[in-house]
Amino acid sequence: MTGFAGVEAARLLWNHHGVELVSATGRSLAGQRLGEAFPSLSVYGELVIAEEVEPDVDLVISALPTGESAEACVPFVDAGVRTIDIAADFRLNDAGDFERWMGKPHPAPYLLPRAVYGLPELNAEAIATAQLVANPGCYPTASILAMAPAFANDLVGDRVIIDAKSGISGAGRGTRGGYSYSDVNEDVSAYKIANHNHQPEMSQELGKLGSGSAPKVTFVPHLVPMTRGIHSTCFAPLKEGVTERQVNDAYHTFYAKSPFTDVAAAPPHTKHTLGSNMCFVHPTVDERNGILVAIGVLDNLVKGAAGQAIENMNLMLGLSQNEGIDLAAVYP
Amino acid sequence: MTGFAGVEAARLLWNHHGVELVSATGRSLAGQRLGEAFPSLSVYGELVIAEEVEPDVDLVISALPTGESAEACVPFVDAGVRTIDIAADFRLNDAGDFERWMGKPHPAPYLLPRAVYGLPELNAEAIATAQLVANPGCYPTASILAMAPAFANDLVGDRVIIDAKSGISGAGRGTRGGYSYSDVNEDVSAYKIANHNHQPEMSQELGKLGSGSAPKVTFVPHLVPMTRGIHSTCFAPLKEGVTERQVNDAYHTFYAKSPFTDVAAAPPHTKHTLGSNMCFVHPTVDERNGILVAIGVLDNLVKGAAGQAIENMNLMLGLSQNEGIDLAAVYP
Amino acid sequence: MTGFAGVEAARLLWNHHGVELVSATGRSLAGQRLGEAFPSLSVYGELVIAEEVEPDVDLVISALPTGESAEACVPFVDAGVRTIDIAADFRLNDAGDFERWMGKPHPAPYLLPRAVYGLPELNAEAIATAQLVANPGCYPTASILAMAPAFANDLVGDRVIIDAKSGISGAGRGTRGGYSYSDVNEDVSAYKIANHNHQPEMSQELGKLGSGSAPKVTFVPHLVPMTRGIHSTCFAPLKEGVTERQVNDAYHTFYAKSPFTDVAAAPPHTKHTLGSNMCFVHPTVDERNGILVAIGVLDNLVKGAAGQAIENMNLMLGLSQNEGIDLAAVYP
Amino acid sequence: MTGFAGVEAARLLWNHHGVELVSATGRSLAGQRLGEAFPSLSVYGELVIAEEVEPDVDLVISALPTGESAEACVPFVDAGVRTIDIAADFRLNDAGDFERWMGKPHPAPYLLPRAVYGLPELNAEAIATAQLVANPGCYPTASILAMAPAFANDLVGDRVIIDAKSGISGAGRGTRGGYSYSDVNEDVSAYKIANHNHQPEMSQELGKLGSGSAPKVTFVPHLVPMTRGIHSTCFAPLKEGVTERQVNDAYHTFYAKSPFTDVAAAPPHTKHTLGSNMCFVHPTVDERNGILVAIGVLDNLVKGAAGQAIENMNLMLGLSQNEGIDLAAVYP
Repeated sequence: MTGFAGVEAARLLWNHHGVELVSATGRSLAGQRLGEAFPSLSVYGELVIAEEVEPDVDLVISALPTGESAEACVPFVDAGVRTIDIAADFRLNDAGDFERWMGKPHPAPYLLPRAVYGLPELNAEAIATAQLVANPGCYPTASILAMAPAFANDLVGDRVIIDAKSGISGAGRGTRGGYSYSDVNEDVSAYKIANHNHQPEMSQELGKLGSGSAPKVTFVPHLVPMTRGIHSTCFAPLKEGVTERQVNDAYHTFYAKSPFTDVAAAPPHTKHTLGSNMCFVHPTVDERNGILVAIGVLDNLVKGAAGQAIENMNLMLGLSQNEGIDLAAVYP
Repeated sequence: MTGFAGVEAARLLWNHHGVELVSATGRSLAGQRLGEAFPSLSVYGELVIAEEVEPDVDLVISALPTGESAEACVPFVDAGVRTIDIAADFRLNDAGDFERWMGKPHPAPYLLPRAVYGLPELNAEAIATAQLVANPGCYPTASILAMAPAFANDLVGDRVIIDAKSGISGAGRGTRGGYSYSDVNEDVSAYKIANHNHQPEMSQELGKLGSGSAPKVTFVPHLVPMTRGIHSTCFAPLKEGVTERQVNDAYHTFYAKSPFTDVAAAPPHTKHTLGSNMCFVHPTVDERNGILVAIGVLDNLVKGAAGQAIENMNLMLGLSQNEGIDLAAVYP
Repeated sequence: MTGFAGVEAARLLWNHHGVELVSATGRSLAGQRLGEAFPSLSVYGELVIAEEVEPDVDLVISALPTGESAEACVPFVDAGVRTIDIAADFRLNDAGDFERWMGKPHPAPYLLPRAVYGLPELNAEAIATAQLVANPGCYPTASILAMAPAFANDLVGDRVIIDAKSGISGAGRGTRGGYSYSDVNEDVSAYKIANHNHQPEMSQELGKLGSGSAPKVTFVPHLVPMTRGIHSTCFAPLKEGVTERQVNDAYHTFYAKSPFTDVAAAPPHTKHTLGSNMCFVHPTVDERNGILVAIGVLDNLVKGAAGQAIENMNLMLGLSQNEGIDLAAVYP
Repeated sequence: MTGFAGVEAARLLWNHHGVELVSATGRSLAGQRLGEAFPSLSVYGELVIAEEVEPDVDLVISALPTGESAEACVPFVDAGVRTIDIAADFRLNDAGDFERWMGKPHPAPYLLPRAVYGLPELNAEAIATAQLVANPGCYPTASILAMAPAFANDLVGDRVIIDAKSGISGAGRGTRGGYSYSDVNEDVSAYKIANHNHQPEMSQELGKLGSGSAPKVTFVPHLVPMTRGIHSTCFAPLKEGVTERQVNDAYHTFYAKSPFTDVAAAPPHTKHTLGSNMCFVHPTVDERNGILVAIGVLDNLVKGAAGQAIENMNLMLGLSQNEGIDLAAVYP
């Protein structure tokens, strides 16, 4: 609860009228007032951080790190408590894929078939009745939303190159070597080139759309010197004869009813999503080369983590989808 | 309405339950959808920017630039419409002071005695019944809130040195020479040294507290490379025998009932106020030298501009003081 | 001379032992001391900015904007003065290409065949005897250096996707809408998607390497919130059977004697080049998908502009290639 | 050697013609090539980091942390090796002051009277013959240079308030809690309010100028979101009758022959010193209140650390004062 996603969930829940934050947990800070440990949450007044989650809850949102979250969630899921996992532990459908990419066996492979991928633009109905929701990663949310209309309408071939740029908060709260201000400011660098564990998640979910198989995804994430924001630039070969008009129509139709994804008329800015649950997508046709360039931008801590978790919770509880996350972005 | 303060007001009003934004005006952008001109405001859907304010309004908040605002407000005030001016045009009580610091005569000096200084921590009652509210500047809000308990309790002499650091958005929407990213990033500089028009405003308002006369204020503003935030560090000579305990008690008592100003236990961070209406103040006694060091931090576009204007509006309309601005800060 | 590239050239020439900056020109600032107009150049003491270039010079480096530079250079070239053009005006070999991408006819098409593309890693010999050198753009320098060994060794097919991230100084000195600090800070956005005039330059020069024709280049530039730096991430299909070992060997061999391009063992950081003339390249093989991912990073104002211009000048004048630009990067 | 000041010393020594960096030491990185551990230093080619300083050196520059440096320096000093200490260990003349501010006794109090305060603008002659030079702190260099002409000419009373803003690299290489990018970006905060160990250093050295005793210094340091740079704003009561003209004359005369300190005509920018050894000072008279506002700006890692150490070394070795540090600033 005391990582960035947890703090962000607390920020958003303050204005949620269907749910009240009654308990915040975090071992290392237990006993402190929430507003003392995190002055940005001073609105919570006297609420004190507890050590453990109370057992009789209706719904759990876990914001533990990937690799630790599954073990914490399993007892709740097994006890019938509806659970949303912000980590990557339940996103891959195949236990073998999990082990290949995470480097260790999955602690509860029997739960993987029951987990619903919590991207409301694609799976709103299944989310509404799910017992276990795997909240998508920040990179996959931006990238899948950027490419979904193209795959759903069979406009592109089965290869995608995804070049994503992330703000530093995506690296989490830690101050491990490399994330100090002096090292990261005024710097761009790539990491885990074609080797990041969000790659199979994107391939798997895009493969469920349209008529094809899971596309080959080459994914290169980059860190850029800003705190929040994901900008995903996706490249895929357009199928013969597909026109820019068809592409635009497909995108507008696909997101016509989505409250949190808009098709932008111009290249979108991550800054226009800061603090909000919006995702802006923007397709461009490179006619010279027959390539679709589709961009998705969002705030990695909101639509890319805590905001989408609340969106999923709203759907699961039958509340208005935008309760608590119906916010304009903070600009500039 | 289309400067930064106007955009910020629109962001905050989206979640205000007592007021609805029915019209946004801005000459240069008239005719565009608000969410097209400002994608951060995409929640407003089809609302289009108008050219002129409709004449039959209940209350006007003017976010025009200092020096232009008075002329736009005067017709409304004269017509009996309650008015909040975010610019500096009605903040100085004395028309001579206005002319001295602004370099031109005041267009409606007869209104100056009727204008209430809109700092709710000091003037909530007068604001509630005011017809014309002069919304304080960002620097004065941070600085006066940092020093008010000291002056109100006669703990310091009549001299204050105020060294303030502001994010670049305080310089407004323009891209006049010197505010381009490449010039301002990785840079700190002072400007208008001891010559900024917020100086008399601070002296005037601090002088109304306690038993003394208007203190001598030396004010030096600085630009630092961040978008939002004011950090004001104030230095004043402690009166003989005043203890750290007395100082702390005075500050806590003074702000005990203020919803938006908290006394911080540690040096406060501007970042802990981003997007929120909070001001954190923090007094320290330099015992070696008999100096009170009092810090105030806030978000210049919220408590330093649009948020405080809405706070004033709430008080004027008899609504809950924190309606629409009851937000946790965006962190990190 | 008074744009960013001109100021950078002056910085570097201060420590150049073969050339002395005797005159700096810039119409709008003529008459001021160079160190007064640009305090970063205070080392130049009493040197005053002149209005016009003196006619009897040995060599001209033009740092005028693209589209204005050719006309200024032509009289010098015609008079036999050796000329280096930092703008894009002489980079495309074909006048038709120029008109197609720049939107206007070339003012001196007869000079295009004589212009040498000033990338010393590829063309050192031709540069040494050239009368007119077209200094490469910042994006092309990073991208071509990232991909040259792959094309020169026929390791990849004839398609490249280039996703580049640039610091804001690449947008130049102006403060046109969109480059103010408040707009650009904490933001990533793409622009001129698959439509930037550096695209044909990259295709043309890569096509001269290896046995193939000019590759199809899809180029998407992005602005990221830092002042200096280019990070170019290039994706190309590996030819059947090419191994990672072959790729690495090809890169190391290709740059074995280049003083300013190094093959990095880990993903390189733009920050490690700040203020220096170094370019770091880093190839990675995505074996799952048969894609070469090659990265190039550099400082857009040094190796991407003024530094490379001086490197070219050194070669043209028979000086040591690294005179004046033999600098370690400023870190952090 | 492997902290920021050490890396900066290596950057500057690359272009120093009187001294060659033959050995870089750093326990944790021993065995690595310097350019591998620090790619910004790739110019050093095959130079490998050693574990220990070779004993038979002519001069030692220690860049160890304050509190650890004295113990490392003592054997060298005792053996007659000329030594420059970048840490704070030899700056206070009085062992009691050291213990009071550092919280532990000085390990070699007998050396304190022999240490020369290494600020060339004040002590060039003593430095030239010193055996032990205490290199000034970054805050004191900016602040003392800002105020020295005023104290030396008895223009101000014996009280100074110093409000300083530092880039994050001043906090050193560590990533201790609080210096991660996400925490520090878009933030200003004060720390060690009136309780920083640079305070006595400033009082001590300013007290040696003019006819007065050591002034009372109230010092408040702040961290601002940039990597390099110190901006020190100093406030002192002007003596009766002192005019702005007198102040300006005093400053220009005082620094007329100093190669690295210039009196700026306008408020100076930290950015104009980046990577250079320059300090710009700028006095302003607040006539309304009888206050001198004097600003000093510099790069904390150059004039505030490694650059000044090299300047001192040059003086000690009888070399040109600006050898190796005769650089224009990197702008923008």
